[in-house]
Amino acid sequence: MSLSFEINSRSGNARGGRLITPHAEIETPVFMPVGTVASVKGVPQDTLEELGAQIILGNTYHLYLRPGVDTVRKLGGLHGFMSWRRAILTDSGGFQVFSLNELRKVSEEGVTFRSHLDGSSHFFSPESAMEAQIGLGADIIMAFDECTEYPADQARMRASMEMTARWAARSKKYFEEHKSEVPWGAASEIPTLAAKIAARMAHPPSLSHAGSGDATQSLFGIVQGGMDRALRKESAERTIEIGFPGYAIGGLSVGEPRELTREIVESTLEHLPKDKPRDRRGVGTPEEIVEYASLGVDMMDCVLPTRAARHGLLFTSEGKVSIKQARYAQDAGPLDANCGCRVCNRYSRAYLRHLYASNEVLAQVLNTIHNLSFYLDTMRRVRHSISLGEESRFLSSVWSRPKP
Amino acid sequence: MSLSFEINSRSGNARGGRLITPHAEIETPVFMPVGTVASVKGVPQDTLEELGAQIILGNTYHLYLRPGVDTVRKLGGLHGFMSWRRAILTDSGGFQVFSLNELRKVSEEGVTFRSHLDGSSHFFSPESAMEAQIGLGADIIMAFDECTEYPADQARMRASMEMTARWAARSKKYFEEHKSEVPWGAASEIPTLAAKIAARMAHPPSLSHAGSGDATQSLFGIVQGGMDRALRKESAERTIEIGFPGYAIGGLSVGEPRELTREIVESTLEHLPKDKPRDRRGVGTPEEIVEYASLGVDMMDCVLPTRAARHGLLFTSEGKVSIKQARYAQDAGPLDANCGCRVCNRYSRAYLRHLYASNEVLAQVLNTIHNLSFYLDTMRRVRHSISLGEESRFLSSVWSRPKP
Repeated sequence: MSLSFEINSRSGNARGGRLITPHAEIETPVFMPVGTVASVKGVPQDTLEELGAQIILGNTYHLYLRPGVDTVRKLGGLHGFMSWRRAILTDSGGFQVFSLNELRKVSEEGVTFRSHLDGSSHFFSPESAMEAQIGLGADIIMAFDECTEYPADQARMRASMEMTARWAARSKKYFEEHKSEVPWGAASEIPTLAAKIAARMAHPPSLSHAGSGDATQSLFGIVQGGMDRALRKESAERTIEIGFPGYAIGGLSVGEPRELTREIVESTLEHLPKDKPRDRRGVGTPEEIVEYASLGVDMMDCVLPTRAARHGLLFTSEGKVSIKQARYAQDAGPLDANCGCRVCNRYSRAYLRHLYASNEVLAQVLNTIHNLSFYLDTMRRVRHSISLGEESRFLSSVWSRPKP
Repeated sequence: MSLSFEINSRSGNARGGRLITPHAEIETPVFMPVGTVASVKGVPQDTLEELGAQIILGNTYHLYLRPGVDTVRKLGGLHGFMSWRRAILTDSGGFQVFSLNELRKVSEEGVTFRSHLDGSSHFFSPESAMEAQIGLGADIIMAFDECTEYPADQARMRASMEMTARWAARSKKYFEEHKSEVPWGAASEIPTLAAKIAARMAHPPSLSHAGSGDATQSLFGIVQGGMDRALRKESAERTIEIGFPGYAIGGLSVGEPRELTREIVESTLEHLPKDKPRDRRGVGTPEEIVEYASLGVDMMDCVLPTRAARHGLLFTSEGKVSIKQARYAQDAGPLDANCGCRVCNRYSRAYLRHLYASNEVLAQVLNTIHNLSFYLDTMRRVRHSISLGEESRFLSSVWSRPKP
């Protein structure tokens, strides 16, 4: 059993559950911090553990380019490479190929794209994207999809959705034939280096959660279909027909209005199996992660808390704080009096403002720790609220909207 | 009693002792990590505590310019401002005015200099430098001195040394008249904000070590005299005559050969009181901190471990490692197999190399933690070696020289 998902409580469309992966048991709905190149920017792994992160995300596109799949695979996959013992999810690479490559060339076979690092040419097919993700060794990986641009006409949205469906079938076929090659798998030919790393870690990555030694990764399908509800429904049906243990809603946050994103997610969710985890990448503000949880999304991630932290934008129970402002220069109070994170427990707004104004690296470190803490804490309160079945008070109980 | 110093063991000229300051008891010889603008770059305060740092250094020149003394003072001094409960030392500002200001103007009254941040004009006199350091509120502060350039002729070295002696007397006079104004002192008019910060810290800065509520800072004198042994001797005598609870050897690392630095330190130490702590700023490599400890220096600091870390240069028990090198790309071993720090316990050289190559902020964080750990650990072994009276094996027992 490489993945199991159980729903323990409901509140309206929201679900509280438990997702069991080879490396960790995850309470859902869950927020997944983004570690693009095998590092959640500025935050050591033990601090992520302290914050309660149960699963983090790596970007296949970035990791494929640097340090390269072969290096990660030889070091035991991402778990061994970055010394992270809990769960990891990698994305398909489709979104990055789309968003970072204006000169990409898409064919039935796959996508030719240029590295944003050095301009070198590369090719991702469903098969090579699977090969990369198997080498990276995340617990949950994604079928290779085409992210449809916005706006797009009906014919383009249909053609793109249909290609994603064909690619999903090819992804699954390759995955089923090669899943035993995962670097932490029983059939892996490279246990030596991984074991060497594990041997000197206080709490090495282990597969205890998966129970058996032949645990493998789990491949999720991705629903596309642009901004057309009927195409989304058809994409969901075709992806479900291929059959995956979980489903992601892709192709959003590509420039469309936020209200439209929400509508598409809501309508797509209706067509996804109720007993399988649903993943929605790139969500969002604290309000949005609460809202998408209320719609029935189980897994979310976003670079917003980490990226905003680097720009001095901090999320608090009383709304957003731009810590660079001079008004905080002599503010002895904590960033967020309602937050129990190690930053709010120890430092003043004046100090955080000084670090930011002085361009000190510690500013990024502390700001990121707080923002992640705020997101993870928000999701914790969402889960608690669901477990109490607090449907009517769902949104208001977990999130005080920012003061105007 | 604001400072006490006791020597418990000796090994040749090396001394093992205990320095008791208002905020911490410090085992000597001690290495002091540098936190230029109230942050040891990239390292949170709780991590510094874990590493065993008992005293850190702040730069008066930098803090005076940003965030400004008034801000730090209002927030309870550096201890409250940066939430650091152990000891702090601030330097005189003399070295930075010297090294960062080619256009400085020195007169008997003081030094006019330009901010390296915005070019604005400022003035430090012995009195204003004391006022700044009292406002910053470190446990140990430094008399304002003139750092003599290298090379300098005999007349210039003498004139400069004599001015430093006059400035030392003025520094002491101002300090004695104003030391009760320290922001954590009993007579401080601004206990409110500091108390507000302290109230929500799990372990607030306290003055327990000093014993009484009227503890103040301690002012150290600085010996100058350029590269002339006789002038150094005269400077030591004149500074001792003014009378301080500790003495620093200043005006070194200004471009002279390292062997000359060592000679001047060694000869100056002969003229300093045996029962008072001796401070030597800007030392050095791991070999040098061991060597200076063996000469009888009690307190040392250097930006080298933190600065080198930012450039991927790491100190290990087997010598220096430039982690950026491609040879480490798939090296699953720890950075230093003999190091017990949290970086060596958890991460591989391959991962550290990847973080550096990918320009990830975590590279600086982890590299700095390791280098500081290595320095603090080296000094711990020096102290242990002194306590065993291992004179003959002093150097070799605490430090394996890098392989050629």
